[in-house]
Amino acid sequence: MIIIMTMNKTISSMRSKKGILVVVSGFSGAGKGTVMKRLLQKYDNYALSISMATRSPRPGEVDGRDYFFVSRDAFEEKIAEGGFVEYAQYCGNYYGTPKAYVEQQLEAGKDVILEIEIQGALKIKEKFETALLVFVMPPSVEELERRLIGRGTETPEVIRQRLSRADEEAEGIENYDYIVINNQLDACVEELNQLIITAHNAPIRNKEFIQSIKEDLKQLSKGE
Amino acid sequence: MIIIMTMNKTISSMRSKKGILVVVSGFSGAGKGTVMKRLLQKYDNYALSISMATRSPRPGEVDGRDYFFVSRDAFEEKIAEGGFVEYAQYCGNYYGTPKAYVEQQLEAGKDVILEIEIQGALKIKEKFETALLVFVMPPSVEELERRLIGRGTETPEVIRQRLSRADEEAEGIENYDYIVINNQLDACVEELNQLIITAHNAPIRNKEFIQSIKEDLKQLSKGE
Repeated sequence: MIIIMTMNKTISSMRSKKGILVVVSGFSGAGKGTVMKRLLQKYDNYALSISMATRSPRPGEVDGRDYFFVSRDAFEEKIAEGGFVEYAQYCGNYYGTPKAYVEQQLEAGKDVILEIEIQGALKIKEKFETALLVFVMPPSVEELERRLIGRGTETPEVIRQRLSRADEEAEGIENYDYIVINNQLDACVEELNQLIITAHNAPIRNKEFIQSIKEDLKQLSKGE
Repeated sequence: MIIIMTMNKTISSMRSKKGILVVVSGFSGAGKGTVMKRLLQKYDNYALSISMATRSPRPGEVDGRDYFFVSRDAFEEKIAEGGFVEYAQYCGNYYGTPKAYVEQQLEAGKDVILEIEIQGALKIKEKFETALLVFVMPPSVEELERRLIGRGTETPEVIRQRLSRADEEAEGIENYDYIVINNQLDACVEELNQLIITAHNAPIRNKEFIQSIKEDLKQLSKGE
């Protein structure tokens, strides 16, 4: 029974050790940034992908923390090299997700978190079918409104833009894998962490493992 | 600002309170039965669906616990009434999932667990797009082999049938939402419980909620 001897291996040890790409989007004001910051503080199996941008840093923004701020030329060179997972232009500026960091971290077994709006999220899902898309919601409709409309101090034009963006985001929610409600920070962080752990068990993220089980069964059928 | 006043509701309170249908399949010998028994003992938000069958009870099987054993006439009458979620024939006997119990329990907010083989699982997924399909694996390939091939005491015909069934099951794994490995009973039960909790957060299981968010945003756009 040589076949059985060579297959003395646990099924759990055969599962994929690679990290997964987690895209986090959500309505403005849902508190995505705070949730992700806490998630990264709490667990060391996550890596945060930082976008590259050609716009100027705003007051308080730090290069390498908020964005990697680069010139238009540098950005376009990187596009030409195929160096982005996804990129897009808004208001005349480029924004993109550098590919090398994401791939290195995934290979190293880290789950890579990416905060990105819906258009980018859908592009990611096209390229990485194993990406996990999570949509963060604020705790109440009232809160959502407050964040969008403000307290009467915003110009009608700013409010119009925010509402139109929220509308666009809402239209895309069905494309996300999960909705997380940021009701209470720690609970939300735990829920997000658990979602990501769970996502590792989906067959789509274990194709090699499933293939090896199928081959073992075929070998068995032959050996028998 | 009447619009804001009427929308003072928490987002979490708007989410679906209905249960979800959880289909559990897996290789013979993966320990599905034990896992589900423990899950139901440990948590009271689950309900176990019991299949109806026209075959005779085997020694030790109890009517209403293992199956509801009924006559062929009674089964066919129920088919005619549309009383099954799914049914099939094996070796000249009918097996089916009675619809009324499943629907009552889901309405009552219970997650309904259904142990069923792959053909039935796929039929369920066609009818209930929100069903969650979980595939349970034994802890090792060696263990899987032992369960399939036995210890040399089975007839070649029995082994051939088991292997062919396992092959068929393996071909269908990609259709499941999650794989759970029954490495250690309590850990497996916890993982299954967590998977089910997590599944409630998928947009596909929160369509009304998403619709209401979209409508709120549209109202806001008009009101503004």
